[in-house]
Amino acid sequence: MKASTGSDHPHIVLQDLTSASPNPSVMDIKIGSRTWGPEASDAYIAKCLKKDRESTSTPLGFRISGLQVYTGEESGFYKPDRDYMRKTGLDDVKLILRNFVSSNPSSETGQGPGPDCSLVSYVYGGPNGILAQLVELKTWFEDQTMYHFHACSLLFMFDQRLTLEGARSNAVVKLIDFAHVTDGNGVIDHNFLGGLCSLIKFISNIVAEANDHTGTNGEVEV
Amino acid sequence: MKASTGSDHPHIVLQDLTSASPNPSVMDIKIGSRTWGPEASDAYIAKCLKKDRESTSTPLGFRISGLQVYTGEESGFYKPDRDYMRKTGLDDVKLILRNFVSSNPSSETGQGPGPDCSLVSYVYGGPNGILAQLVELKTWFEDQTMYHFHACSLLFMFDQRLTLEGARSNAVVKLIDFAHVTDGNGVIDHNFLGGLCSLIKFISNIVAEANDHTGTNGEVEV
Repeated sequence: MKASTGSDHPHIVLQDLTSASPNPSVMDIKIGSRTWGPEASDAYIAKCLKKDRESTSTPLGFRISGLQVYTGEESGFYKPDRDYMRKTGLDDVKLILRNFVSSNPSSETGQGPGPDCSLVSYVYGGPNGILAQLVELKTWFEDQTMYHFHACSLLFMFDQRLTLEGARSNAVVKLIDFAHVTDGNGVIDHNFLGGLCSLIKFISNIVAEANDHTGTNGEVEV
Repeated sequence: MKASTGSDHPHIVLQDLTSASPNPSVMDIKIGSRTWGPEASDAYIAKCLKKDRESTSTPLGFRISGLQVYTGEESGFYKPDRDYMRKTGLDDVKLILRNFVSSNPSSETGQGPGPDCSLVSYVYGGPNGILAQLVELKTWFEDQTMYHFHACSLLFMFDQRLTLEGARSNAVVKLIDFAHVTDGNGVIDHNFLGGLCSLIKFISNIVAEANDHTGTNGEVEV
């Protein structure tokens, strides 16, 4: 393909992931307890390590770096500010993962009944839901030794209206922000995989709780 | 139980793992790309990080910290010196994991035919071999959120003579050196799990290669 300068060279084709969705609910989760790669300088490592330790990256193996949840035509989007997102701890992460699939998201921990998780079986659960997609991704990461993804994110995305109209999951998981990918050299990406397994455990717990309450198996009942 | 001082307090009962084995072949593998825990001081983290980066801990998710392989009554034990073990890189790790199940272990890379992996199906392969035990351990680590193991090792152990006489695996995997265990706080030990998955991939490759050569499925044929 020709570049705008007229010269011929390889291009990366970018996809606008939310273009088909009128009101996308989106969550960006940076995966891995370590966000620096093998060729990083000491200064860059020190900077990343500080952020990883101060955020949930080191303790949890991932950190949530962005969130917007569509809550309705009048209320619009729930979108916690950057300052809140930067300071999230273990309890906040549990809350945010619930907020993402709730009609009443809130940043208040320990107040009132909490998020209702009304969309959990549409978005996280079910045969095509986010949990199933994460488990599939995990299987790939257990085997692939070509790429190591540093400071890379998983994007969770769904459209509430399409979900409720279609009565089936349109939730997708995408690997994004792959600016820092290095050669795996025949070794699996154990840093990404560890964080992914930790995230899977959190999502599994939410799906299991919802099933306990409703008596379903996390699949959509229509 | 009473202590030697006469006072009553809890005891840890230690097991001598190799006591039943006349000539144990033993390998000690420190698991995890990060060997420091959440309460470590900055100075301790800097010390560990240096070691983790200089060894294979950061790139591979584990490092081999000790090895002895029994090779016969006359030749005794193959036991590479500490200096060699401290400097192992990716290729050395591949070699050492093969040496452990070979009758002709050697520290020379790229020379001659290399280790014969004659015991691979007895030790790594088979329904009760080390690979099967590692996969079982992985399943536990994907779910348990009580303990985080820092700078903890897996010990691989078998007795060559008992193996050949019994014609079945007596290989065992044990979790050892658990001096730095902290509360998991409801989070899986993603650091240990990532390293364990990486080790499983290395061992799987060796078992698969052996199967390719022999046409067996890694089980003992008697």
